[in-house]
Amino acid sequence: MEADAPKKAVVLVSGGLDSATTLAVARSRGYDCYALTFSYGQRHAVELAAARRVAEALGVREHRVVSLDLSWIGGSALTAPIPVPKNRPLGGADEDDIPITYVPARNMIFLSVAVGWAEALGAHDIYLGINAVDYSGYPDCRPEFLEAFAHAARLGTRAGVLGGDLRFHAPLSGLSKADIIHLGVSLGVDYSLTHSCYDPDPEGRACGACDSCQLRRKGFEQAGIADPTVYAPRGG
Amino acid sequence: MEADAPKKAVVLVSGGLDSATTLAVARSRGYDCYALTFSYGQRHAVELAAARRVAEALGVREHRVVSLDLSWIGGSALTAPIPVPKNRPLGGADEDDIPITYVPARNMIFLSVAVGWAEALGAHDIYLGINAVDYSGYPDCRPEFLEAFAHAARLGTRAGVLGGDLRFHAPLSGLSKADIIHLGVSLGVDYSLTHSCYDPDPEGRACGACDSCQLRRKGFEQAGIADPTVYAPRGG
Repeated sequence: MEADAPKKAVVLVSGGLDSATTLAVARSRGYDCYALTFSYGQRHAVELAAARRVAEALGVREHRVVSLDLSWIGGSALTAPIPVPKNRPLGGADEDDIPITYVPARNMIFLSVAVGWAEALGAHDIYLGINAVDYSGYPDCRPEFLEAFAHAARLGTRAGVLGGDLRFHAPLSGLSKADIIHLGVSLGVDYSLTHSCYDPDPEGRACGACDSCQLRRKGFEQAGIADPTVYAPRGG
Repeated sequence: MEADAPKKAVVLVSGGLDSATTLAVARSRGYDCYALTFSYGQRHAVELAAARRVAEALGVREHRVVSLDLSWIGGSALTAPIPVPKNRPLGGADEDDIPITYVPARNMIFLSVAVGWAEALGAHDIYLGINAVDYSGYPDCRPEFLEAFAHAARLGTRAGVLGGDLRFHAPLSGLSKADIIHLGVSLGVDYSLTHSCYDPDPEGRACGACDSCQLRRKGFEQAGIADPTVYAPRGG
């Protein structure tokens, strides 16, 4: 690699608002970005189309969509025929209230694959859009999880063992959803390309009532920015 | 669950000697075992057939073979067209000498999926056959990696956050290959069902010269137990 070649980063891109912003942050910091998306059996496959749009719009070196079915594991409304809760009061980081949309070990699995790819690419930086302010209360979105995972990853890889560095970046970690949107807009993110809803209608329109829609909608309101989301007409 | 129902354990089963022994240990401790095997693009798919034989012979409640192609990541002689080293001197735990058969982040990825399944099953125990005595020098086989990973897993899962326990067992960790074989024989493991070679011939016969064959062969010799492995005829 030439001395002035851009640094490489692996970026987890789901197609949602947070990961699009995270990708824009990594790009703005001068990284050559390798986007990683998972087709894991999520019910809302419209996510994958959004991930492709986002990766293309923001300019990545390579975009991998990895097939790893997690639906057989069960236990989540995102991968199993369990109703997605609607209009649930969101209280922030209540550790005793992990919602049914939590997918067991999802971030750990995705991060592990990211580590493998980073190692093979010679990338020392991994970006992900976890956030523990306006979030759904998933344990694997908390900073203490990421810190512990990073420690394990350094011990478990060639890069870490041989003294190379391996850094995990969660640039949205301490931001409110409104702050994230402001940041993304300042970096040129077109949020109309993104998809957040856990339970879109057959046309891919957002339900407006799941946790993810509520957080997104509130974020645009608080940011004072027009919400580009296309919502499904509300039923009775 | 009834009070006296057996405890559940998820066991990583590759089809090799170590994981077969580990499964036998978990069974001997009274666990209902859920075997987890990965079809990850390994060149020696004969491993998968061995995993099925082992799981069936030792008696598991369920056996999942998960497709997760890691060959696109590259960088390993087990998944890419890179020659498998033969007759390499094996010096034990030399951290500066991670062989080309190392698959980036493999154990981290496999363990993460195991954590997800354990969580959904309500299992609190995960068994894996890593070993840091007679081993190939993979960083993700070392006890310090497993300890750090376990800590991250407890922080990143519903089970861990809500106070449930999540335990990782590596019962072979401190054993020599000969000790592992003695243990397995005492527990009734039929090692003729297992497969260790990184580079079998088209008939699935072991090469006898890769790191894994060398460790296995030496193990049977030192244990004073007849080696049931079918080796390919040695070429010139």
